[in-house]
Amino acid sequence: MIVLVINCGSSSIKYQLYDMPSKKVLAKGLVEKIGEQISGLSHKYDGKKHEVELSIPNHKAGMEVILKTLTDGEVGVIKEISEIGAVGHRVVHGGEKYSGSVLIDDSVIKCIEDFCDLAPLHNPPNLTGIREAQAALPGVPMVAVFDTAFHQTIPAKAYLYALPYELYEKYRVRKYGFHGTSHAYITHRMAEVLGKPVDETNIITCHLGNGASMAAVENGKCIDTTMGMTPLPGLVMGTRCGDIDPAIIFYLLGKEEFKDYRDIDKILNKKSGLLGISEFSNDQRDLEEKAEKEGPESRAQLALDIFAYRVSFYIGAYMGIMKHVDAIVFTGGIGENGSIARSASCKPLANVGVELDEAKNNETIRGKEGEISTASSKTKVFVIPTDEEGWIASETFDLAT
Amino acid sequence: MIVLVINCGSSSIKYQLYDMPSKKVLAKGLVEKIGEQISGLSHKYDGKKHEVELSIPNHKAGMEVILKTLTDGEVGVIKEISEIGAVGHRVVHGGEKYSGSVLIDDSVIKCIEDFCDLAPLHNPPNLTGIREAQAALPGVPMVAVFDTAFHQTIPAKAYLYALPYELYEKYRVRKYGFHGTSHAYITHRMAEVLGKPVDETNIITCHLGNGASMAAVENGKCIDTTMGMTPLPGLVMGTRCGDIDPAIIFYLLGKEEFKDYRDIDKILNKKSGLLGISEFSNDQRDLEEKAEKEGPESRAQLALDIFAYRVSFYIGAYMGIMKHVDAIVFTGGIGENGSIARSASCKPLANVGVELDEAKNNETIRGKEGEISTASSKTKVFVIPTDEEGWIASETFDLAT
Repeated sequence: MIVLVINCGSSSIKYQLYDMPSKKVLAKGLVEKIGEQISGLSHKYDGKKHEVELSIPNHKAGMEVILKTLTDGEVGVIKEISEIGAVGHRVVHGGEKYSGSVLIDDSVIKCIEDFCDLAPLHNPPNLTGIREAQAALPGVPMVAVFDTAFHQTIPAKAYLYALPYELYEKYRVRKYGFHGTSHAYITHRMAEVLGKPVDETNIITCHLGNGASMAAVENGKCIDTTMGMTPLPGLVMGTRCGDIDPAIIFYLLGKEEFKDYRDIDKILNKKSGLLGISEFSNDQRDLEEKAEKEGPESRAQLALDIFAYRVSFYIGAYMGIMKHVDAIVFTGGIGENGSIARSASCKPLANVGVELDEAKNNETIRGKEGEISTASSKTKVFVIPTDEEGWIASETFDLAT
Repeated sequence: MIVLVINCGSSSIKYQLYDMPSKKVLAKGLVEKIGEQISGLSHKYDGKKHEVELSIPNHKAGMEVILKTLTDGEVGVIKEISEIGAVGHRVVHGGEKYSGSVLIDDSVIKCIEDFCDLAPLHNPPNLTGIREAQAALPGVPMVAVFDTAFHQTIPAKAYLYALPYELYEKYRVRKYGFHGTSHAYITHRMAEVLGKPVDETNIITCHLGNGASMAAVENGKCIDTTMGMTPLPGLVMGTRCGDIDPAIIFYLLGKEEFKDYRDIDKILNKKSGLLGISEFSNDQRDLEEKAEKEGPESRAQLALDIFAYRVSFYIGAYMGIMKHVDAIVFTGGIGENGSIARSASCKPLANVGVELDEAKNNETIRGKEGEISTASSKTKVFVIPTDEEGWIASETFDLAT
């Protein structure tokens, strides 16, 4: 079966076409700058790349461009859109309703609408993607794969904030967690690598990218994660602050400069993190280069230190609350591609029995999978490249067949 | 030397009179409801208690009442106020300026004024206490002992938030930490108990009370703590929420019900924590009783579970970032007096080598000091009753002599 995976943002649509169950990627690409004067299509197929600038006024047009490209005589990979057997949609927020993926029907759409309040930047474009795909591919089964679903096994003592209980009852204020497709994929892949059943696999997953989160996975089930009701808290991210004293917001609102809370919201989400500390870049590699040049006292190095410190902190915390840890796993852009952040995050953890093999760590980059801890390390450490789209394709294939 | 310790709040003054260096408490008490129609004095001396209702219109009058009581023919413990050789003041916020206690002069007062912006509820009454004591006891040396001082050794990677760096430069937004007198006292006492020099003592201190915080202490120096720029974040407290997703504040400000950020500030500080979850009480003992009656599914139990989970979480995190941990220490009202919270906090930590001796744990209550871990526990666990006033008296005596 041919499965199309769609990740629809406010001005972009990412797509990936799979042959299932082999998981062979037939093509993938991105339509971006939807609604702007000049939009773009970037399409990869068969080891080749096709890039064009064109006008894409809205998501409906974007979806048409994607389907036209996939069936194009030259750059396409299928003959007719009727070959597409199912569509999998990444949906950010499934609230407390969905602890797994689900075939989309009207009631599912209503729920996703209902959760727009909790994810106002993400669920509305996700919904648009679903609607446009349904319009373009009538009768084709569609599946929603939620970023929050994997975290629905987190127990109340970890998902409830110590806030008035009525804020949970009335406004659904609780920890939901995100990056669930990545944490779920890593859990299943790690179980394979360890040769254990998923429900006996105990790992700490570190998804480190421009967005970053970790999960404590006990017997294959998530028991805690670093993100919260929103993707803001937890680790230091490219431009997001992660954990802060929430009272800082009140303090700033008391200043002349910050009268509107939306301005502070923007600062915490868009101008903080690695970018905010370094005042230079949100990109780990840029900062590594700059720190290399400017030395250990540089602001770039400080940003990297704070990033790594927070990862160490959460690894320790999760080792504390978990009964047993088979492995710590690094993934995501920063977790997969470079060795520096992994090394810095694991270095302080000797006391709790984590020891990296620096040679292995340095070798396991740019998409390689492998163990990077020493033979004597009490807890193993792995690098596993994540595959969120592949996970969505698998979930979609499973539900559509 | 007779040392008077003063802890001045917005409508109360706590005092304690010491004979130093023996640290013998001659008297202690509390003036409260200052400025209300009926104020109160509660005075303890020589195993006896003296309580009266009277009119105390302001802090100046409050200070006069205290000094009159201390020298009273019947309930007093000294003959003349001239016997008081020094006064130690608890001051909440010393910013980045003070990493230790200091003899008060005009420049110190100016600094404490300057930090009122960072601690608007605490530094102003602390200052009032200093001024009234100076007026009542002219020429007597006064010492400021800061709640933040012990935490000034925290490195930048732990005290800086991942926010735009200019918020640190311009508004001094960083982690300061509080309860420093307690964490400092516990560190010194624990070093004595372990028979180690303070600068080789590595402990995790858990000060659990209506306000609660923890500190990671490496070689006698604090390297991280759970409170932040303000005393709001970290552990679950009586009425304070501790750690939350800061974006919850933005979410609530978007609701009709919460237009003013000051209302949310109040909810997070006064209506959250154990009280908020349980909707019953901010008192651990009340909740333990209620949970005993209503069972493991009760909201009271949930509040206790969240409280303990957060303590476990931070113990794990600190064990991760520290090179070595000699002991975990419990103190404060909840940490000293009851065994349930300690037991619940340590139970999940078997994986990292923490094991309580439940019999010892149950015995070491109501002010007893002692070890409560098993002989085989990799990390020792102790209960040490805190003595913040005694610490202030010692600091004051050291600086005034």
